[in-house]
Amino acid sequence: MGAETCGANQRSLSPFRARQATQGMCDIPCVWTYWNFVSKAWKSLGRMLKWESKQQYIDVITNPVAAEGPAHAAAKPAGSTAVPYKTLLVSTEDNITTICLNRPHKKNAITVAVRGLAGHKLCSILYSIPGILYQAAAWSLLRSVGNDLANFKVLEGGIERKAKDTHHLFRDFVRAFIDFPKPLIAVVNGPAVGASVTVLGLVDMVYTTEKATFHTPFIKLGLCPEGCSSYTFPRIMGTAKAIEMLLFGKKLSAAEACQQGLVTEVFPDSTFLTEVWKKLKDFAQLPRNSLALSKQLIRSMERENLHAVNDRECELVAERLQSEECLNAVVHFFQAKAKL
Amino acid sequence: MGAETCGANQRSLSPFRARQATQGMCDIPCVWTYWNFVSKAWKSLGRMLKWESKQQYIDVITNPVAAEGPAHAAAKPAGSTAVPYKTLLVSTEDNITTICLNRPHKKNAITVAVRGLAGHKLCSILYSIPGILYQAAAWSLLRSVGNDLANFKVLEGGIERKAKDTHHLFRDFVRAFIDFPKPLIAVVNGPAVGASVTVLGLVDMVYTTEKATFHTPFIKLGLCPEGCSSYTFPRIMGTAKAIEMLLFGKKLSAAEACQQGLVTEVFPDSTFLTEVWKKLKDFAQLPRNSLALSKQLIRSMERENLHAVNDRECELVAERLQSEECLNAVVHFFQAKAKL
Amino acid sequence: MGAETCGANQRSLSPFRARQATQGMCDIPCVWTYWNFVSKAWKSLGRMLKWESKQQYIDVITNPVAAEGPAHAAAKPAGSTAVPYKTLLVSTEDNITTICLNRPHKKNAITVAVRGLAGHKLCSILYSIPGILYQAAAWSLLRSVGNDLANFKVLEGGIERKAKDTHHLFRDFVRAFIDFPKPLIAVVNGPAVGASVTVLGLVDMVYTTEKATFHTPFIKLGLCPEGCSSYTFPRIMGTAKAIEMLLFGKKLSAAEACQQGLVTEVFPDSTFLTEVWKKLKDFAQLPRNSLALSKQLIRSMERENLHAVNDRECELVAERLQSEECLNAVVHFFQAKAKL
Repeated sequence: MGAETCGANQRSLSPFRARQATQGMCDIPCVWTYWNFVSKAWKSLGRMLKWESKQQYIDVITNPVAAEGPAHAAAKPAGSTAVPYKTLLVSTEDNITTICLNRPHKKNAITVAVRGLAGHKLCSILYSIPGILYQAAAWSLLRSVGNDLANFKVLEGGIERKAKDTHHLFRDFVRAFIDFPKPLIAVVNGPAVGASVTVLGLVDMVYTTEKATFHTPFIKLGLCPEGCSSYTFPRIMGTAKAIEMLLFGKKLSAAEACQQGLVTEVFPDSTFLTEVWKKLKDFAQLPRNSLALSKQLIRSMERENLHAVNDRECELVAERLQSEECLNAVVHFFQAKAKL
Repeated sequence: MGAETCGANQRSLSPFRARQATQGMCDIPCVWTYWNFVSKAWKSLGRMLKWESKQQYIDVITNPVAAEGPAHAAAKPAGSTAVPYKTLLVSTEDNITTICLNRPHKKNAITVAVRGLAGHKLCSILYSIPGILYQAAAWSLLRSVGNDLANFKVLEGGIERKAKDTHHLFRDFVRAFIDFPKPLIAVVNGPAVGASVTVLGLVDMVYTTEKATFHTPFIKLGLCPEGCSSYTFPRIMGTAKAIEMLLFGKKLSAAEACQQGLVTEVFPDSTFLTEVWKKLKDFAQLPRNSLALSKQLIRSMERENLHAVNDRECELVAERLQSEECLNAVVHFFQAKAKL
Repeated sequence: MGAETCGANQRSLSPFRARQATQGMCDIPCVWTYWNFVSKAWKSLGRMLKWESKQQYIDVITNPVAAEGPAHAAAKPAGSTAVPYKTLLVSTEDNITTICLNRPHKKNAITVAVRGLAGHKLCSILYSIPGILYQAAAWSLLRSVGNDLANFKVLEGGIERKAKDTHHLFRDFVRAFIDFPKPLIAVVNGPAVGASVTVLGLVDMVYTTEKATFHTPFIKLGLCPEGCSSYTFPRIMGTAKAIEMLLFGKKLSAAEACQQGLVTEVFPDSTFLTEVWKKLKDFAQLPRNSLALSKQLIRSMERENLHAVNDRECELVAERLQSEECLNAVVHFFQAKAKL
C-alpha cells in the first residue's frame, strides 16, 4: 500500500500512525530542496547547450510545479480534522497537529510552493493548540501555488520578476517560522537538504533517526544561506562549524548534528516512531499557556533580528538567482548529475 | 556530628573544609527550588480538596518560610570572618569567600528568602576579594526575609500582592548575579532543581561531581523559565537543547550538562572536594584586578539584555502564579507526590 | 635545510608545499604571543632586580623587535606572486593565498609588528581572490614596523605613550580580521598562544593537527582577553567554558577545542598537510562571489559589536600594561621561567 493511498484512506489517524501501521516504518526520506533542484530535470538539463539550459533554468526557477504536471486536489473527508492537500497530510490527533509531506516519487522535495504556509488555511492549523508540528521537513502546497506561478508566467516573462516573486513566497514561509507562537517540533527520518535544514534553527526541538543527514550545498549552486541559518547556525554551533556547513557544504550525520546542537535527540531507526510519538503525547499534556508563553519568552529577544536576517537573505538569494555565477553553477551541477 | 554543629564549631575553617574534615564528604544535596515546592507540604496538600489546596497554595507562595517554623539566629563568633546565618554558612579562607547552604533536613531548598543576597550584608561579602563563590546552589537567608514576608501577610492578603512582592525579591536576587563584578564559581555536589540551575547561566564557572543533576520542571508546574535562563541557556547550548530542558523538563546528568556547556568540569565523587579546593586556591592567587576587569569585559555586552530579560521573566512568573493553569498544575503535582 | 632557506629558494611554490617537500612535515610550531613574552628575554629578566626589570619590561613592551636585532629584507624574486617579507612567507597558488610565519628560532612568536596586516601591501594580498588564508596563526611583519617602533622610541619615552601606540597597532590588526570580506581559514600545526588563539573566533574555519594546543594565559600576566575573544568565545563555547579558558588559563587540546566549537576539524599529524591542502584546493573551486557574499552575510550582524569590543579590549590592555599588577605579574612570570 503506497503512502498516498494510506494517507487518503486513513485520515482519521494521523498520517504518521497510518503509515506506521501499514508500512511498518515511514520510508519517505525527507529531502527538501528550496528550488526543487532534484528530479529528472537534472539529467535532461545536463545534456542541453548553455542557452537552452538558461531557458530551462528560468523555467525551473519560476515554475517548478508546472514542470511536474498538474496536481489533483485530494477529496476532503467529511467530519475529520484532516486538511485536504494532495501532497501534504495534515491532521490532529492527541492534541498534536502533524504535517507530513507525501511526495515519495519526488523524494519529498519541497517546491517553491511555500506561500501556503503563510496563507490563511494552513496557518490556522499550525496555530491550533498545542501547535506541535510533526515532520517540519515535510511541506508542500503544490497545487494552489503552482497555479499562481503559472499565471505569473503568462503575465510577464523575465527571470528578474520571477526571482522576486519567488523570493516573497519564501520570505513569508520563513516568517511563519519566526513568528510561530507555539512549540514546533521537527521529526526527521531521512536526509534533509537545503531549506528543510536551515529552518531547523527556528524550530524548537528536532528529533531524528540515526539515518538522517543534514546538508546545505548553497555555495555549490552559486546561492547563499537562507531560512535565517546565517544567523541561527553560528549561534547554535559556533562559527567554525556553521561556516563549514553553510559555506563549504559539510554534510552532517545525525550524531554530528546532535553533538553540535542542531538536533535535540537521535533515536534508533527501529524504535524511532514509537519513542517520538510517546514523547509528543506526553508533551501535549503539559500546560498549554505555560508552554506557549515560555516559547515566546525564549524567542522574543531574537525576533527582530531574525526578521531582518530573513529579509536580507531573501534579497541576496534573489540577486544570486539572476547572476551568471549562479546560472553557471546550476548548469555545471546538472551536467555532473547527468554524467552519473 | 551534624552539618549545622560543625558549621558553628569550626567557623575559622571554611564550612567547606569543616564538613570535609568531620564528615568525609559533603553529603548535603544541593536542591534549590524557587518556590520551595519541596518538603512535607507536598503530601498534605495532595490530600486536600481543591479550595483547601488553593489556600495552601497561597500560603506556600507567599510565606514558605513561616510554614517551616521560626528560625533561630546563630550566635556570632567573635573575631572571625564567618557571618551568622543559621541556614547559610558564609566564610572567607585562602582569599576565597564561600557561601554554603546548611539545611540538610529541607534538602537544602532555597526559600523565597532571596532578598538578602541583594541586601547590604551579604553583598559586602560576595563582593569581597576575590569574590570566588562556593556552592552557588546553596543560599538561604531564612530568618530576616521570613519575617518580612510574615509582616506582608498581616498587612494585606490576596495572592496578587504576594506574587508581586515575591517577584520583586527574586528579581533582585537575579540582579545580584547579573551585576556581580568578580568571578563567581558554583560548586554543585548533588541534584540541582529550578533556580539553582537557571542562575548557573550567570555564574562564571560550574564545577560538579558526577552525581549532580540539573532539572528545570517549570512547565509542569504551570510556570515559566527564570534566572535569565530563557536568554542564557539558548546561547550556551543552542535552542534545540535549551528548549528540551526549559520547556520539556529534560533532566541533565553532570556529563550531559558539561557536554552542553552549562558545566565547566565534572569531577569524580571521591576526589571532588580536594580537587576543586586546590583549583580555587590557585585561582585566588591570580591578579585580582585583572580577573575582575576581564570578567566585566566578558559580561558587559550582555548586561543590558540580561536585566531586561530578568524583568520580563519575573513579570511573567508573577502572572503565571495567579493563573488557574498554574494552580491546577501545582495541585496536580502535589497529588501525584502524595500518592507515592 | 632550514625553513628560511627553503622559503627563499622555492618561492614559486607555496611556502606550505615548499617546506613539505624539503622537510617532510612543517615543523614550525605556531606560537603567537601578543607581547612577545617568549624568548631569551625571559631568563635574563628573571635574574634582575625589580627596577631593572621594570626598565626591561618597558623595553619589551615598546620595542620587542629591536631587542631581537635588525632584520634583513628578503630579496624580491622576479615574476612571482610571493611577497618579500623575511619572516613571513606569502604566496598564491591554486587560487589560495597562504601566509606562513617563518621564525622557527623564535618559536614563531608574533611581535608587536601587526600594523602591516592593516597596511596596504598585505591587505591587498589578503583581499586577493579567493582570499583563503593558510596558517592564520603565522604572521610577522618584523622589519617595517620594527623600524617604526624604534623611531617612536627616539621621539618620546614613557611607557604610557608606548602602550598607546602599540594598542593602536593591535587594534588595527584585529580590525583587519573583523572586516576581512572573504573566507579566512586558519591552519594550525602546533601550540597556539595568546593572540593567535583569540583571533580564531574571527576566522571562518580552523583546521589543526592533533598536536595543536590553545592557550590564553592573559590573567597570569595581569592582562585581559583581546582579539574580540571576550565576545566571540562565550558565543562559541558558552560562558562556563570560555571563562575557564580566558580567565583561568585552561589550555585546550585540539580535541577539546574541536568539541567546544573553536576548531572545525582535527587531522592526524601524518596526513595533516595533504588532507588540508586537498580541501583548500576544492574550496578554491567554489563560486567566489557566492562565498564572499555568504561570509559577509554571516558576519554582518556582529560587525558593529565586534568593533566596539575590539576598541574596548585594546583600551583595557593599554591600561593593564601600565598597572603595577601587570608589571609584577610579568616579572613574577619571568622569574619563574628563569628558575627552570
